[in-house]
Amino acid sequence: MTAYQQLEERFRRIGALEQAISVLHWDTAAMMPEGGTSARAEQLATLRFVAHQHMTAPEIEALLAEAETDDNWLGPWQRANLREMRRRWLHAAAVPGALVELESRACSECEAVWRRARLENDFAAVLPGLERVLRAEREIAAIKAERLGCSPYEALLDLYEPGGSIATIDRLFDEITSFLPDLLENVLIRQAALPPPPGAPGPFAIETQRRVAMTLMERIGFDFAHGRLDVSAHPFCGGIPDDVRITTRYNESDFARSLMGVLHETGHALYQRGLPPEWRLQPVGRARGMAVHESQSLLLEMQICRSRAFLTHAAPVLREAFGGDGPEWEIDALYRRQTRVGRGLIRVDADEVTYPAHVILRYRLERAMLAGDLIPADLPGAWAEGLCALLGVTPDNDGEGCLQDIHWYDGNWGYFPTYTLGALIAAQLFETARREITDLMPAIEAGEFSPLLSWLRERIHSKGSLLSSAELVEEATGRPLGTASFKRHLRERYLN
Amino acid sequence: MTAYQQLEERFRRIGALEQAISVLHWDTAAMMPEGGTSARAEQLATLRFVAHQHMTAPEIEALLAEAETDDNWLGPWQRANLREMRRRWLHAAAVPGALVELESRACSECEAVWRRARLENDFAAVLPGLERVLRAEREIAAIKAERLGCSPYEALLDLYEPGGSIATIDRLFDEITSFLPDLLENVLIRQAALPPPPGAPGPFAIETQRRVAMTLMERIGFDFAHGRLDVSAHPFCGGIPDDVRITTRYNESDFARSLMGVLHETGHALYQRGLPPEWRLQPVGRARGMAVHESQSLLLEMQICRSRAFLTHAAPVLREAFGGDGPEWEIDALYRRQTRVGRGLIRVDADEVTYPAHVILRYRLERAMLAGDLIPADLPGAWAEGLCALLGVTPDNDGEGCLQDIHWYDGNWGYFPTYTLGALIAAQLFETARREITDLMPAIEAGEFSPLLSWLRERIHSKGSLLSSAELVEEATGRPLGTASFKRHLRERYLN
Repeated sequence: MTAYQQLEERFRRIGALEQAISVLHWDTAAMMPEGGTSARAEQLATLRFVAHQHMTAPEIEALLAEAETDDNWLGPWQRANLREMRRRWLHAAAVPGALVELESRACSECEAVWRRARLENDFAAVLPGLERVLRAEREIAAIKAERLGCSPYEALLDLYEPGGSIATIDRLFDEITSFLPDLLENVLIRQAALPPPPGAPGPFAIETQRRVAMTLMERIGFDFAHGRLDVSAHPFCGGIPDDVRITTRYNESDFARSLMGVLHETGHALYQRGLPPEWRLQPVGRARGMAVHESQSLLLEMQICRSRAFLTHAAPVLREAFGGDGPEWEIDALYRRQTRVGRGLIRVDADEVTYPAHVILRYRLERAMLAGDLIPADLPGAWAEGLCALLGVTPDNDGEGCLQDIHWYDGNWGYFPTYTLGALIAAQLFETARREITDLMPAIEAGEFSPLLSWLRERIHSKGSLLSSAELVEEATGRPLGTASFKRHLRERYLN
Repeated sequence: MTAYQQLEERFRRIGALEQAISVLHWDTAAMMPEGGTSARAEQLATLRFVAHQHMTAPEIEALLAEAETDDNWLGPWQRANLREMRRRWLHAAAVPGALVELESRACSECEAVWRRARLENDFAAVLPGLERVLRAEREIAAIKAERLGCSPYEALLDLYEPGGSIATIDRLFDEITSFLPDLLENVLIRQAALPPPPGAPGPFAIETQRRVAMTLMERIGFDFAHGRLDVSAHPFCGGIPDDVRITTRYNESDFARSLMGVLHETGHALYQRGLPPEWRLQPVGRARGMAVHESQSLLLEMQICRSRAFLTHAAPVLREAFGGDGPEWEIDALYRRQTRVGRGLIRVDADEVTYPAHVILRYRLERAMLAGDLIPADLPGAWAEGLCALLGVTPDNDGEGCLQDIHWYDGNWGYFPTYTLGALIAAQLFETARREITDLMPAIEAGEFSPLLSWLRERIHSKGSLLSSAELVEEATGRPLGTASFKRHLRERYLN
């Protein structure tokens, strides 16, 4: 076996371990009774330790060097695979095993405390855990920054958005903050000028909501022979490409919240499912990072499922399932409810106009905490101040403030920017798709999703990690990532 | 760290890997969509490979030798832990990797063919696969027999019933065959003399069955903060001590089959849950083997839940849930249905009087095959002959005969005796409990299960693998395992 082949063999094993971790992570959120928490923490810590052990086995470094020296016979996918192996090895080898285990345990423990603390608005309860997590993250960031030759923040960001840079993010986010406040103000004035759309009061039986969600998921292309829909406190898309597990939470008085969440996760799921099957378990077969991942969920949820075309298709399904026939079930009412804009406190409930402000707040705060400029004890105050500056609202308690998201408590630092990068990519992709696919919106209105899905499969899903995010976006849309499509989309939908 | 401490550290990691395997195994049966099959196989194979790698790391042998030499400072639990480490290491290290792989492949292939062969009554189709599995098992048995210093059959049995011996099993099974045929004949005559008990025709809504099962599970002592009840094709008790997952399958026309199955698995679950928490992840903290495990499920299902006392307690719950008020819901009808005896062909449907005959048949046949005295091609004939001699019935086809159980086709040789050993232990334990716990049966009738559960926790569950099965039974009941209690139980229940 050549050095490259030996690496494929070893990374196949690491890939299988990571898949096991992913399924257990889903189980923790969707199935595990509370009493399983500490045993699960031990299992996950051990699996991560073992995966790390395999990744940092002394042979890997030598094999990488050998394969990179003798890479003439490799095809483009193999070369990209080798590049991704090197990247993953750099991340793994930078951090000593003991620190990996310490981080894993700190996160599991902190996350468990956070679950209760959030419900009880008790930031003090989770503060020691958060401090422990941050200490581990700062240590990891410092070590990786040196090995990767980037800033500590970028060293963490790189795990979620490979090759992502502060310079790019700052430029894009600055552009957004330059036009968004005015745009938001105009949208709010415009929406306030109309009487509010009639609401559908419910109650909506959970079993019916679930059936509607599954119907629409299937029509869009979700294959239940390769996936599930379950319930968890914090909706997410987990599992693996051949067995994609999405979760939601139901609210009996509001069917749309869960449904839009499900459609969002379905976008993630379709991406996972469409990754190149011939590269399963290999680094190049993985998703290209969380910005591209989020672009797929936002493209489906925001660009498509909140469009008048999709809601025209969905309306009869909703009316039949929920037995609705009043004015609140008319297309216009559904559309206006799904595109309602407001200055809110909760990121996951935010509309697409205000969403970037929530992300920018978190991006600033996590950079400040990692840099040591903000200590966790001061987070609630900094949060309130920052949100007020960006959106003009202030939380009444920490449950609606800095406790609302799991990310920091579960060790996902450097993740937040990918949400808004994803929104930008989604807008740019969808603009291209509408230009290239004949009659795309009428097809969606008719419930025909396959033209769009095929286009996404070809341009994005099947590419795995062959290209960088920047290359992928530029190849798919013909130009580098910018904010213009996103801005046009918001103007068109909310101001026309 | 001393050698012993280093071993604890290493076995803790192996224990956590095995817990992860256990949760994924549950997921495969209870949650996974069909499309996840091959990815899951890869995950499980990798985890097993890694666990085996850790178990057979060259350092382990040296550490075991060192710890055994210098064991004066060890307490009884640590000594027992060391003994169990040695036993587990012997099993893992005895068999060369190539043979482990060959066996694993032979079993997977054979089991896949068996699934279809069973449905089509086609023994010939699975015969070559069975021959391959048997060849591998015989080779493994021969190697392990030398290392463990026992007979080849005992070397396989040891995996399920550590320290189990043919001499003991033969003696116990001979005693059973000496009294069971007459006893069975008398029971059948007696039951035939009465009109059959009135049946409850249903249908019984699955959701109601589930609620009833959960209610009774909780009353008996199952803690849903540390466990779940789900559905799978083949009911089992999986998960881990802090997160016990039992499964059932529902039949809308027969609530009792699922309910008794749930109560059986609840017995397993209470054992798992009661294992010593301070020895979690260590070999000595594990269940004492499948005979003791089965004793806990049979004690609950057979001794308690089919008793008149328990059914008197359960009857109002059943009547209320299923809205029943006819004669078929009277205690006597419930009791007579749950203690109905018959000469059947299928082990898993057998009553407690005929069950041992099914086990003894399989024990004899698997010993003969392992010894080379019976070739697989002659199995159907030997099965028919053996069953006729033991129970007086003959299968019409191999689906109802030697194809009915998965064990041999999936490589679980030496497992069958543990079912009947478990029934004997259950009877002996329950007889002791009734003697030692004041008013036990009235307590059960009143729905008070904690006196019994505390007794089992103290005598059995909390002991983990501290003692051998033989010692455990003798310490708990004051005498060595025998058949007298079982015989008395059958006479009392079925002939008094």
